[in-house]
Amino acid sequence: MLGRVNHIAIAVPDLAAATAVYRDTLGAKVSQAQALPEHGVTVVFVELPNTKVELLEPLGEASPIAAFLAKNASGGMHHICYEVADIIAARDQLAAGGARVLGDGTPKIGAHGKPVLFLHPKDFQGTLVELEQV
Amino acid sequence: MLGRVNHIAIAVPDLAAATAVYRDTLGAKVSQAQALPEHGVTVVFVELPNTKVELLEPLGEASPIAAFLAKNASGGMHHICYEVADIIAARDQLAAGGARVLGDGTPKIGAHGKPVLFLHPKDFQGTLVELEQV
Repeated sequence: MLGRVNHIAIAVPDLAAATAVYRDTLGAKVSQAQALPEHGVTVVFVELPNTKVELLEPLGEASPIAAFLAKNASGGMHHICYEVADIIAARDQLAAGGARVLGDGTPKIGAHGKPVLFLHPKDFQGTLVELEQV
Repeated sequence: MLGRVNHIAIAVPDLAAATAVYRDTLGAKVSQAQALPEHGVTVVFVELPNTKVELLEPLGEASPIAAFLAKNASGGMHHICYEVADIIAARDQLAAGGARVLGDGTPKIGAHGKPVLFLHPKDFQGTLVELEQV
């Protein structure tokens, strides 16, 4: 079921500072910051040769990463996103296997304009897993 | 400086259970478990098309992931490993930029038989960064 690792997401308290670390200290190619108010984050993409890291800063009052940063003030790895060919088939197979899909199980349109679902970290060794149909 | 994401490491309390989740629930290709006593872990590689996830279970009394699992009993994302072409040049550039290299700064031979260094998570938004010379 799992395809490529689409991205590794890192929640950060200060996006400008984090971007400077990845660009200047680590010498990586970084994008411009993009505000995604419908997702409650501002994002910078760190482009690696085989995948990308996404630096996420909370945006607005109901950001989905606010609780994570309240527990991890310095930031930290937030989720891994895997590509799948058919998100509905993936969801149904996961549910049949007993894994919990977050929300009502209906894919939402994610930050890349494609259908996404999140899986419960308790069913995946404490790792929040995102699936994105590509 | 940063090359490919070599792997994303996930610390797990029960490697057999975690392997079953990635193989059976998520439908990924997984390796046999390999005990690496010199690194204090037993590892299973989850092979994705563009990178890999490494599931790490503590091995022995002085495992480097024991403290992490004491704080995160279910497991969780532990570090990201990036490839670099020249680990000494990378180390010196990082040190010049003020980033802290863990240990005495001398690369050790990592789980893949190649020189590795770890960088202080406090200098990288709470993310433990491994560099591996390839």
